[in-house]
Amino acid sequence: MKIEELGEFGLIKHLTSTVKLQNHSTQKGVGDDCAVLHYPQEKDVLVTTDLLLEGVHFDLTYVPLKHLGYKSAMVNFSDVYAMGGMPRQITVSLGISQRFSVEDMEEFYNGLQLACEAHGVDIVGGDTTSSMTGLTISITCIGDVEKGKAVCRDGAKQGDLICVTGNLGAAYMGLQLLEREKAVYYQQLQEHHGNETLEMAQPDFAGKEYLLERQLKPEARRDIILKLQEKGIQPTSMMDISDGLSSELMHICEQSNCGCRIYEEHIPLDYETASQAEEFNMNVTTCALNGGEDYELLFTVALTDKEKIEKLEDVRMIGYITKAEDGKVLITRDGSVFDLKAQGWNPLKNES
Amino acid sequence: MKIEELGEFGLIKHLTSTVKLQNHSTQKGVGDDCAVLHYPQEKDVLVTTDLLLEGVHFDLTYVPLKHLGYKSAMVNFSDVYAMGGMPRQITVSLGISQRFSVEDMEEFYNGLQLACEAHGVDIVGGDTTSSMTGLTISITCIGDVEKGKAVCRDGAKQGDLICVTGNLGAAYMGLQLLEREKAVYYQQLQEHHGNETLEMAQPDFAGKEYLLERQLKPEARRDIILKLQEKGIQPTSMMDISDGLSSELMHICEQSNCGCRIYEEHIPLDYETASQAEEFNMNVTTCALNGGEDYELLFTVALTDKEKIEKLEDVRMIGYITKAEDGKVLITRDGSVFDLKAQGWNPLKNES
Repeated sequence: MKIEELGEFGLIKHLTSTVKLQNHSTQKGVGDDCAVLHYPQEKDVLVTTDLLLEGVHFDLTYVPLKHLGYKSAMVNFSDVYAMGGMPRQITVSLGISQRFSVEDMEEFYNGLQLACEAHGVDIVGGDTTSSMTGLTISITCIGDVEKGKAVCRDGAKQGDLICVTGNLGAAYMGLQLLEREKAVYYQQLQEHHGNETLEMAQPDFAGKEYLLERQLKPEARRDIILKLQEKGIQPTSMMDISDGLSSELMHICEQSNCGCRIYEEHIPLDYETASQAEEFNMNVTTCALNGGEDYELLFTVALTDKEKIEKLEDVRMIGYITKAEDGKVLITRDGSVFDLKAQGWNPLKNES
Repeated sequence: MKIEELGEFGLIKHLTSTVKLQNHSTQKGVGDDCAVLHYPQEKDVLVTTDLLLEGVHFDLTYVPLKHLGYKSAMVNFSDVYAMGGMPRQITVSLGISQRFSVEDMEEFYNGLQLACEAHGVDIVGGDTTSSMTGLTISITCIGDVEKGKAVCRDGAKQGDLICVTGNLGAAYMGLQLLEREKAVYYQQLQEHHGNETLEMAQPDFAGKEYLLERQLKPEARRDIILKLQEKGIQPTSMMDISDGLSSELMHICEQSNCGCRIYEEHIPLDYETASQAEEFNMNVTTCALNGGEDYELLFTVALTDKEKIEKLEDVRMIGYITKAEDGKVLITRDGSVFDLKAQGWNPLKNES
């Protein structure tokens, strides 16, 4: 069905008709000039927003719309978890070009709702409009945290332990795999003189499912925030790893006015990531440091929390915070000392 | 200066360096994974969002970037006022293509900040990225209202008076003027064989300043909300007029399950709007009903508030709410009865 048959209000009504509100803090959702929320006195309110543009942030030649919806929501939840909070509401604005159908947008919304249901988040509003070019997605997420307990980037202190959840570099490897298959596809298309109906070799992703899932369907670490609360651990600083470990760690150091010392041997890697890096002839540590899009958490805790942290599953200590003048360094497996560089993904920076 | 010289983080830092926080509810602004807000128990929190795309919502051939920044903020404030609330914070996401410089974005931000200062709003966050095509602007506004006092669209009751602030149709006339001059410019350019350096006839907007300002620099009606509060008037329903009076009134009637009867002779028009409509050979009432972008307020009040309303400057009663089965009608000057039609601006709807 063509979107113009429904129009803007019709499309919004259609897509949000199955939205159920789950949160006490949501008083009124979609359908008025504003959503109405109520947060109790003992909570602070968190707000984060992300703009995702086709051709810059995602490539629909290999990203299914349902996955895109899921990931678009997840990257926003991740920012709320990175403050030690819980996401509660999102607004979703979409700019949609003519090549998308109502069914396409249903797919996108299915992914969005799947993510929202899994994380207890309400879709409370948004804006839908036509776009002259590709798909534009703007999501704002609102969450809450105990008053005064938001974990910022500027609280790391000398001697604090640096911790990372899960493993790093897998999402980047997944992206490399998808990009390689895309190149193969276009090469075949060229050989077939642009005839898409001819049979092509299908991509063989057997055994690579984990890497693809890390790229296409990341999971924000709600579980870690709940565990930290349960164990009474208040991180001194925290961020989510969206642009790469190196870049995020440098943000924490700069905003906390300190240095850091991390150890290559402690950076958590999955076996598949390492083996894929080898196949691609890439340095796996570089992938883990600069890859980005893992949506794991990077945080620091006081040394007194060391024992509690050691008992936490899926959290690794990778180094510690130093004085600013000691620099931001990586100690390699052979004991060499390297300055960390932020080579994180930065679409506005000139790479030359 | 090229934006790529600063990069994403550099650009955000540069643009937000002069932002001063004005609101008690803003605990932490730009610079972390989330902004941190705190709202007291006696307030409800309002959230609204707007996505503005170049070529769909604005045309940079005649809209200066500073005005665009101002208007982008204002249309969001207007949604908060339309709930009877006060805007407090915004997040600003920008997708910027290569043809924009740092100075361009400074212009945009200047307009944004001017609007924010005038309405007491803090810029607390956002996202800045490159765009493959034009300029993308996504703004989310957060505001507050006394708990339980948000004015929704579904509260209009039979017998309520229908009120409109300011005057209608002027923004639409301003747009027609700008579009006409754009056409003249391109015609001249064609005659000059694309040589932009040749002298061209300058547009003559003398005497049309009011219409242009209504289009380029709309003012959200904070003053009216403050007056309503001061006089103890709680509207039964309210919206801002962004898509045209007809369309908005139909939303209120549908959501409140009622009808309406409005009178052509009471629809507030400015003299310049009427005279420009005549020059363009357009029906001024049609412009007022369907023009949109006036950002005036449309609201209903109980009949018992009639005397209070009559004393309010810049508010006009244009009709009253009826039973749903009586339809949504306009009574013309000669006493004819017409069904209202929503011909509001709807970029997703097929116009045929």
